[in-house]
Amino acid sequence: MAESWVIMVTAQTPINIAVIKYWGKRDETLILPINDSIRVSLDPDHLCTTTTVSVRPSFEQDRMWLNGKEISLLGGRFQSCLREIRSRARDLEDEKKGIVIKKMDWEKLHFHIASYNNFPTAAGLASSAAGLACFVFALAKLLTLQEDNGQLSAIARRGSGSACRSLYGGFVKWIMGKEENGSDSIAVQLADEKHWDDLVIVIAVVSARQKETSSTTGMQDSCKTSMLIQHRAKEVVPKRILQMEDAIEKRDFPSFARLACADSNQFHAVCLDTSPPIFYINDTSHKIISCVEKWNRSVGTPQVAYTFDAGPNAVLIARDRKIAALLLRRLLFHFPPHSNTDSNSYVIGDKSILQDVGVQDTKDIESLPPPPEIKDNIPAQKSNGDVSYFICTRPGRGPVLLPDSRALLNPETGLPK
Amino acid sequence: MAESWVIMVTAQTPINIAVIKYWGKRDETLILPINDSIRVSLDPDHLCTTTTVSVRPSFEQDRMWLNGKEISLLGGRFQSCLREIRSRARDLEDEKKGIVIKKMDWEKLHFHIASYNNFPTAAGLASSAAGLACFVFALAKLLTLQEDNGQLSAIARRGSGSACRSLYGGFVKWIMGKEENGSDSIAVQLADEKHWDDLVIVIAVVSARQKETSSTTGMQDSCKTSMLIQHRAKEVVPKRILQMEDAIEKRDFPSFARLACADSNQFHAVCLDTSPPIFYINDTSHKIISCVEKWNRSVGTPQVAYTFDAGPNAVLIARDRKIAALLLRRLLFHFPPHSNTDSNSYVIGDKSILQDVGVQDTKDIESLPPPPEIKDNIPAQKSNGDVSYFICTRPGRGPVLLPDSRALLNPETGLPK
Repeated sequence: MAESWVIMVTAQTPINIAVIKYWGKRDETLILPINDSIRVSLDPDHLCTTTTVSVRPSFEQDRMWLNGKEISLLGGRFQSCLREIRSRARDLEDEKKGIVIKKMDWEKLHFHIASYNNFPTAAGLASSAAGLACFVFALAKLLTLQEDNGQLSAIARRGSGSACRSLYGGFVKWIMGKEENGSDSIAVQLADEKHWDDLVIVIAVVSARQKETSSTTGMQDSCKTSMLIQHRAKEVVPKRILQMEDAIEKRDFPSFARLACADSNQFHAVCLDTSPPIFYINDTSHKIISCVEKWNRSVGTPQVAYTFDAGPNAVLIARDRKIAALLLRRLLFHFPPHSNTDSNSYVIGDKSILQDVGVQDTKDIESLPPPPEIKDNIPAQKSNGDVSYFICTRPGRGPVLLPDSRALLNPETGLPK
Repeated sequence: MAESWVIMVTAQTPINIAVIKYWGKRDETLILPINDSIRVSLDPDHLCTTTTVSVRPSFEQDRMWLNGKEISLLGGRFQSCLREIRSRARDLEDEKKGIVIKKMDWEKLHFHIASYNNFPTAAGLASSAAGLACFVFALAKLLTLQEDNGQLSAIARRGSGSACRSLYGGFVKWIMGKEENGSDSIAVQLADEKHWDDLVIVIAVVSARQKETSSTTGMQDSCKTSMLIQHRAKEVVPKRILQMEDAIEKRDFPSFARLACADSNQFHAVCLDTSPPIFYINDTSHKIISCVEKWNRSVGTPQVAYTFDAGPNAVLIARDRKIAALLLRRLLFHFPPHSNTDSNSYVIGDKSILQDVGVQDTKDIESLPPPPEIKDNIPAQKSNGDVSYFICTRPGRGPVLLPDSRALLNPETGLPK
């Protein structure tokens, strides 16, 4: 093999958010869950991870950079994914470049990997799940694995449970599986992102005031100490999964919303039933829930669903764009930006929704009228600064390959651009 | 009967706080619970309700004053208690005053009732339960009922479920009962207040920022919508009741604390699993829980138990006075008073504990060192004003009669003094 060549693969995978929650493993090493779960992948234009993996003979060790900063690849999660992928590697022939890598050669070669999130990592938006999924997807393409995305999801699962669902777009179910070796614990796509493209998603990134329990530790503690988690996993979730699949298939928003809200609340209930108790949602999350519940009840049928993963950020799913604009009006009314916040950076993602809301600047936000359903409760509470910013997005596609022009690594140096 | 006489009875009943929670009724009218529960009555010197009931022939209707303000007696709760008590009334003979009231005469006589809480009603300390218990106890004495406190508890239960447990001091179990008519759903005393008199109780009265769901509505909603409440009532609580009775009998503080904390957290978990979700505990409650959990874990065995009823106030039970002083040091460190708060009104009840804490004024509070278990996490968070004030107290006695000199009604006018 010549020493000068380099091969790169760049991929992009979506962030995903759970509508029926994964909480609790039955096998810590293989990362096998105690119940099925369902997630929605979000539009990568607004929230995604991009990863470039590259191989060249002169690389002396595996190295990785996240958002430009080198990080260790020694963690068990990366190592088990790397091991699984290397063991499935196949011959690579690049006719144009005149490169041939035999199946056995992959064991001796090292990788440089660069990963980048197009949103603040600290926002607590399950970036590690998307990152792991992208890592696995890009490496699998580089090492020319024949496995389909479902099989790749089983590899990504070994890195991060939630990662396996970022290998598809749209609505994705992670099947808990029954096999002891975890071979049937994989992700399947329930519907692609075009199936229900009316939905609009608004994420309220909530300023966390307390350090959070990691989800790995948290779910271990819940499994050991909660007296409710097994009842949830065995009696409640299986029925909800069937109902949620049905709601998604029929685009039945009221059922979808009721199930998503109830399951989010139950997940946080199990966290609270843990010793020591885990608090992911805070007073700001509570206020957002109350705002949505009050509105839904005043209309008589759900307009918006809310769901919270392992943190205080609210993920709000509106039945359509008109409702999303009404939702954002309410959110901006209750949670105006800090006086020193630029209103242009207060709603990000699909900013065009601000036109529907009728808001151009901070002054417009200040003069928003209270929503009709709270008119009796004047003076309405305003909580400046409780929300850091809003992201407006929608369900999105699964992993895609990007052209080399989008690579994060410099082909000459093998280092981040 | 002469028209000039008046007969008064004045009684005092304790506030009680739950260590195994009551949440959910199987019969809304009879107020029959879905599980047993256990409460501790608090020292009436610090927290109690005093009620004077009086009867005179010239009273034209039943009237009641709470903290000096007239309130309506037309509510179903008062009416069902009044009906139950009148139906059990007996002949009264006051030889000294030369008054005889025949059993049948009680139906024609009216009552003036005045009730007073020695703590702010708005503090959310289950004042209605103590109030109802005192109302029933005082009326029962006036109408010379022969029923014992257990039987009176069944009457008080019709007014407010938790009230039935304020008819005893010390540790009280409210038995859910099996009879359809509720006759066996009564309170029994597990141990009196002297059985475990090492315990010291510190209540953190937390400033509520959101309007709370009433517990009546809340438990109805939970019973209708929570998928976890029946599992809790049928599978979890019965075992905990036995373990808690055992812990109380043996004065086994570690077991007592673990059970009390776990049951408080599970009660709030069920609230969260309700649609719409109920949030009684807030970020300040979370911080207090985290502070206690961290301390307990650093010592290796529980020093303090926490429990929260239907609101954000923390009830903290310390194993003894020395631990209570260490607890209050931590609480004052994390939750110093607002700069404009008089430190003398910041800790009320048994103020003598401040000497053990070594704190005399606001300056002493400001210079408290961080507790050893958080030394790694400097700078420590301080939350001025999140706690309105602390009440230091202990388990206390049941209802008692007070002399006429303590009456709240003027014997001449029949109106509040």
